Amino acid sequence: MFHIELTVRDYECDQQGIVNNAVYLNYLQYARHEFGHSVGMDWLELTARGINLVLRRAELDYIRPLRSGDRVKITAQPSRKGLFRLYFKQSILLLPEENPVLEALITAACVMDGKPAAPKDIDAWFGPAR
Amino acid sequence: MFHIELTVRDYECDQQGIVNNAVYLNYLQYARHEFGHSVGMDWLELTARGINLVLRRAELDYIRPLRSGDRVKITAQPSRKGLFRLYFKQSILLLPEENPVLEALITAACVMDGKPAAPKDIDAWFGPAR
Amino acid sequence: MFHIELTVRDYECDQQGIVNNAVYLNYLQYARHEFGHSVGMDWLELTARGINLVLRRAELDYIRPLRSGDRVKITAQPSRKGLFRLYFKQSILLLPEENPVLEALITAACVMDGKPAAPKDIDAWFGPAR
Amino acid sequence: MFHIELTVRDYECDQQGIVNNAVYLNYLQYARHEFGHSVGMDWLELTARGINLVLRRAELDYIRPLRSGDRVKITAQPSRKGLFRLYFKQSILLLPEENPVLEALITAACVMDGKPAAPKDIDAWFGPAR
Repeated sequence: MFHIELTVRDYECDQQGIVNNAVYLNYLQYARHEFGHSVGMDWLELTARGINLVLRRAELDYIRPLRSGDRVKITAQPSRKGLFRLYFKQSILLLPEENPVLEALITAACVMDGKPAAPKDIDAWFGPAR
Repeated sequence: MFHIELTVRDYECDQQGIVNNAVYLNYLQYARHEFGHSVGMDWLELTARGINLVLRRAELDYIRPLRSGDRVKITAQPSRKGLFRLYFKQSILLLPEENPVLEALITAACVMDGKPAAPKDIDAWFGPAR
Repeated sequence: MFHIELTVRDYECDQQGIVNNAVYLNYLQYARHEFGHSVGMDWLELTARGINLVLRRAELDYIRPLRSGDRVKITAQPSRKGLFRLYFKQSILLLPEENPVLEALITAACVMDGKPAAPKDIDAWFGPAR
Repeated sequence: MFHIELTVRDYECDQQGIVNNAVYLNYLQYARHEFGHSVGMDWLELTARGINLVLRRAELDYIRPLRSGDRVKITAQPSRKGLFRLYFKQSILLLPEENPVLEALITAACVMDGKPAAPKDIDAWFGPAR
């Protein structure tokens, strides 16, 4: 499964000394972004063509906190439903034991000039519509 | 219903010129924090007593984007379920028409020294357990 | 002198319970941005014309820390030197006494298509070159 | 010279598609933090003893912009002046050519219970006072 690894930086922690809950969404977005690169998506070229992947819904389960210096693995497993809906099942796992930190289900939609769209590229990146 | 108002700042927008999806969690947290103040919660004093409100789950529906300068209203409506679970139903509404921007359901737990707890203060702030 | 006011949000504080040093640059940028609006600058229109105000240098003196809930006044006093250089003298002051929190000198340059430029608008916004 | 390396993340870029000016201060802080670790500083233990390294002044020269995916090297070269003042000369360099992105001079002070202090550890980490 596609994943990235990163180390928690001290400035990402809040007054409780743990990673702020909003920072996890940045981590997840970063992993999706890198997934896109890995399958050949060119974000700037897409934007230039008027195509955007828009976040519709995020479900986040916070399981254990992260602290400065923790090393994590962040997965991004894409799937489709119907013509326009894209899903990412994502996990954040604490290394080296891969203990679960956060589980997420992210729903996105492909939009061209503000309207739902299903450009051919989507099939290449996410597999055919089901 | 408890709410705060704020204006979107330019540095909260990302490469697409819209508020980054993680920033909404900051907005929601800020509204919950201010709700706490409004009912007399003293966060520092709670932390000193070893009491923390820990985020367990966030469900976020992104409805329309925000741009720099937009003025929004952010609500926070608390409720309880069982002895330990606290919920916040929250909305972000674009002013002046109050068009929905984001709907959220936030689940938190009250934890004392790492274990579920239900100090008396919780009854005062969130109403009695149901 | 041009200024804005804002309240420190809890998520802007770091592990020491004080506003993170990088957040001050966001505050200062926000005040400059609002100054621009106040003299009629249209940032999107400028970008569309290929004009950017680029940060060249920041000098920041940190005088006293800020905490969640503190209310501050942020000033932005522009000046010019030569044809291309723009300066902002900025202060962050703790309300209501206006005790100094941070003093800054920000140097920017007006750039059009990557080269130094001095479009007429600059005279209107910052006064004539000296 | 002590340095760390990191890759610019997409969410660190602003509406102009370049790394926001405040993010550089986070990068620099992260490098100083890691420098501390490398010489045996235990930040939590220091805080518990009432010792803090407080930022007093930052001078930042912005030389060239960074974009999502850029890989950078961030240096941190400490020095002392007098008993209480600590300096960090820092650079951000674009890899692989090490083209300069930002030059910084950071001034900090060691403070114990709110007053200037020079605990013995400082000699070990930064060299003797000069």
